[in-house]
Amino acid sequence: MRIILCGFGVVGQSLVKLLDSRSEDLYAKYGLKPRIVGVIDSKGSAVNTSGLDLRNLVEVKKKFGTVKNYADTKNSWSGIEMLKNVEADVLIETTASNYKDAEPGMSHITTAMKKGMHVISVNKGPLALAFPSLMELATYNQVMFKFSGTVGGGTPILDYAKNSLSGERITSFAGILNGTTNYILSNMTTGLSFEDALKDAKNKGYVEADESLDLDGLDAAAKLVILANWIMGMKVTMPDIDCTGIRKVTTEDIKKAAKNNCSIKLISSCNKQLAVKPKEISNNDPLCVNGTLNAIAFTSEHSGTQTIIGKGAGGTETASSILRDLLDIRKEIVRD
Amino acid sequence: MRIILCGFGVVGQSLVKLLDSRSEDLYAKYGLKPRIVGVIDSKGSAVNTSGLDLRNLVEVKKKFGTVKNYADTKNSWSGIEMLKNVEADVLIETTASNYKDAEPGMSHITTAMKKGMHVISVNKGPLALAFPSLMELATYNQVMFKFSGTVGGGTPILDYAKNSLSGERITSFAGILNGTTNYILSNMTTGLSFEDALKDAKNKGYVEADESLDLDGLDAAAKLVILANWIMGMKVTMPDIDCTGIRKVTTEDIKKAAKNNCSIKLISSCNKQLAVKPKEISNNDPLCVNGTLNAIAFTSEHSGTQTIIGKGAGGTETASSILRDLLDIRKEIVRD
Repeated sequence: MRIILCGFGVVGQSLVKLLDSRSEDLYAKYGLKPRIVGVIDSKGSAVNTSGLDLRNLVEVKKKFGTVKNYADTKNSWSGIEMLKNVEADVLIETTASNYKDAEPGMSHITTAMKKGMHVISVNKGPLALAFPSLMELATYNQVMFKFSGTVGGGTPILDYAKNSLSGERITSFAGILNGTTNYILSNMTTGLSFEDALKDAKNKGYVEADESLDLDGLDAAAKLVILANWIMGMKVTMPDIDCTGIRKVTTEDIKKAAKNNCSIKLISSCNKQLAVKPKEISNNDPLCVNGTLNAIAFTSEHSGTQTIIGKGAGGTETASSILRDLLDIRKEIVRD
Repeated sequence: MRIILCGFGVVGQSLVKLLDSRSEDLYAKYGLKPRIVGVIDSKGSAVNTSGLDLRNLVEVKKKFGTVKNYADTKNSWSGIEMLKNVEADVLIETTASNYKDAEPGMSHITTAMKKGMHVISVNKGPLALAFPSLMELATYNQVMFKFSGTVGGGTPILDYAKNSLSGERITSFAGILNGTTNYILSNMTTGLSFEDALKDAKNKGYVEADESLDLDGLDAAAKLVILANWIMGMKVTMPDIDCTGIRKVTTEDIKKAAKNNCSIKLISSCNKQLAVKPKEISNNDPLCVNGTLNAIAFTSEHSGTQTIIGKGAGGTETASSILRDLLDIRKEIVRD
């Protein structure tokens, strides 16, 4: 399976390491032989139509900060150029999410689909801004479009709701979908001010380069868009979400909640309306998890409320979700 | 799809009501048209090869306490006789679990498989005592064998671990798999003695007719056997479980745990060894749920620990898991 990898940050590198470390097992157990034929990062690209050497790729990135130096003839194709010039079966899109125009991810995905490539995206931007039309484009071009890693990192929340609950009607859901804000709010229960809790989260490397994505609820809203489209069959995008972040939550609010045996959490909910808002929830609610954990509770017609809790992010975790998507694609291709 | 239903207690009746209420939707959405051609309960049976009338069936059971009175010519076939004389595609086995010889469920299942019928069992007995050989029998007879409802009721724990985490290696797991003992232990944190908490659970109808199944950990152990076989690929049965129930847990133990911000829970764990034992776990652990809730935490190689929490039992919930299995079988049949 020939793969073009756009974006080579933490997730991209974790994926390459994962594919390398499990190559024998993946072939023996699933018949999957992934060949990465092209990689781009923000500074350049590396191409080899018979497959790049994975270890070498990681070393070059580490040494030079870009994959451009992989070969002697330095390559500086953009993602679009790569996608147009190199034949591949799957695009894995891991560039940074942005909620203004979703570029460059958006162009990567549409170019790949139009060329008949299957797409795996862990970039939430394109999905948040154009989920319905991307699904249509995928259907029109008869390609698969997978995005397990966009919600819940390594925790297969989307797959759970879509497949494990088949035959059920999910009537509503609510979740803590952003680990960074959960970490900050959890820390504030010890008396820390918002500013100090934010500083601590930054020191730990939990906060996005653009802190607004976490603090103003954009990341959580993007995930809510994906869940609402995929699980509830809604056709919505970012502007449909009523979104409030955590900047105005005070230690007073948190103390007040604690008196009622409650905590304040940034809750993304889908129950008639779509909203991201700080809310008081009972400490006894399984949804009430602390630290960087994510949690989501699905309420279904016949099986009650089911909560899934897991790490919401992390390079290895997200890489493992990409691998699941790859295996799914491989399974479908073989079936045809 | 022609179905023989063995056992017509809470789960069986919930299933029939569910199939009735969703018949149009199931046909439109999944192409599933279930026809129940035979039912047995402990007192008799009802047969109609073109499909029993579901509402009538429930009414007769309500009025006479048995389905025997469904038709004028009262039918008193046993399950085995029914399975031998009536043609059907699927057996749904819902008779009571027993861990001595697993009868009559065991004979129902083996008879059905030998006749080439697919089997859905929510009866844990046969699986607990003979999981490996039942799987072999199913393979040999080329039939599907499904048992989603045996663990977690309506919460699709087995499916989650097997399918949503595909490509991952689950390295260990631990869970609260019995709601009754969890209810008792949760109640004891308020200072109630074991005896009083047990009495309360009995009044609420949470305790099995044979209370030993709950209190001595047999139900939890049976679920552990199923998980170990299905998810970890082990070939084990009940005698392989190191099993201790909750009869010896005192309010003192629970108070002591509370001082360390911990609770005592009956934990079924698979981590090199298979054990069911009361254990102290931190109140901050997502696994630490109260009341009749079930929870299970899977630790995987790359995606960290993921916890699923849900109602572990209930007629409607378990019926919904049977429906999921039916839909899976239907999907596979269509594919062939």
